[in-house]
Amino acid sequence: MKILVIGGTGTLGKAVAREFTGEHEVITAGKTQGDFQVDITDENSVKALFKSTGKVDAIIATTGSLHFGPLTEMTAEQFNTGLQNKLLGQVRIALIGQSFLNDGGSVTLTSGIIADEPIRQGANATTVNAAVEGFVRGAAIELPRGIRINVVSPTVVEESLKAYGPFFPGFEAAPAARVAKAYRRSVEGAQTGRVYKVW
Amino acid sequence: MKILVIGGTGTLGKAVAREFTGEHEVITAGKTQGDFQVDITDENSVKALFKSTGKVDAIIATTGSLHFGPLTEMTAEQFNTGLQNKLLGQVRIALIGQSFLNDGGSVTLTSGIIADEPIRQGANATTVNAAVEGFVRGAAIELPRGIRINVVSPTVVEESLKAYGPFFPGFEAAPAARVAKAYRRSVEGAQTGRVYKVW
Repeated sequence: MKILVIGGTGTLGKAVAREFTGEHEVITAGKTQGDFQVDITDENSVKALFKSTGKVDAIIATTGSLHFGPLTEMTAEQFNTGLQNKLLGQVRIALIGQSFLNDGGSVTLTSGIIADEPIRQGANATTVNAAVEGFVRGAAIELPRGIRINVVSPTVVEESLKAYGPFFPGFEAAPAARVAKAYRRSVEGAQTGRVYKVW
Repeated sequence: MKILVIGGTGTLGKAVAREFTGEHEVITAGKTQGDFQVDITDENSVKALFKSTGKVDAIIATTGSLHFGPLTEMTAEQFNTGLQNKLLGQVRIALIGQSFLNDGGSVTLTSGIIADEPIRQGANATTVNAAVEGFVRGAAIELPRGIRINVVSPTVVEESLKAYGPFFPGFEAAPAARVAKAYRRSVEGAQTGRVYKVW
């Protein structure tokens, strides 16, 4: 299979790329690194990426930023940055990418445990992650040509504990390599519309 | 209680306003009708609304538009219209409104059955409704001064069947007056972070 990992140069994306390397042809895209560069908030940039890769069998997105901050001070403008980046960015990848998938191909997006288990300063993250899961549920019933779509919801990744640990008191972390297995379930499995929780 | 119903001039909003009228002081806001006019996509318009109403005990939002259309033809730009309107519009109402709520007050937003039960052409609606529910989950743990936040998820409303019925094959409809009771559970009850499903 030819697998495109957008965000494949990040902490989680690198582990996902590694999970498939050797058995499959893996292409990585990142904002500044990887085989191709892409800005997921830019329609033309995402279109250019797929024109460069050509048809693929699997599209994986492990990317997208969110707004973190206290709810009592949060503005709609700040909130919108997460909507435009992680949410609409991943949706854009799926909407444009569907035409670049071979029959029976798949899209795998990334949400996160905060969708179900809110944390302080995380209202935007809970919203966006729940939204990505909603998109997958909605899109799964309409995708043509046997194309499937799923989402992986990781807990906090062990490799990110130094940066994010204090936000997740008592949460069990998972190594990125373990989270990466859920992407394989999505890509090589037969299910669609699923949320694969790694927590 | 002083209750502000944003969208209080729509099919559902009118029933919600009726549910509280007589027992409470009800103020309605709509795009072109109601006691006050408001554009929920406009930061200044929402701020002006709350400056006009002054402090309230309950904020209810029964408003917001979505994009409906086939997934295979959907663009990120179309998708964003639903994010900016029903999602960010309701979030904006909550973010600005929190400062205009008396201690122990409440916010009640509106999602919809499509959050859980997708329909054709409804990927944007499933996403946005799931996102609104996510926001409520995330915001509930951070709101100060005993302020609560919940969301009502109605099935298709009987009064809207003529317009929307064909999109909901086999779905049981509910009269708007029955859906309105869930808003009373939220406003007069003690729970927070809840999704009240009327289906």
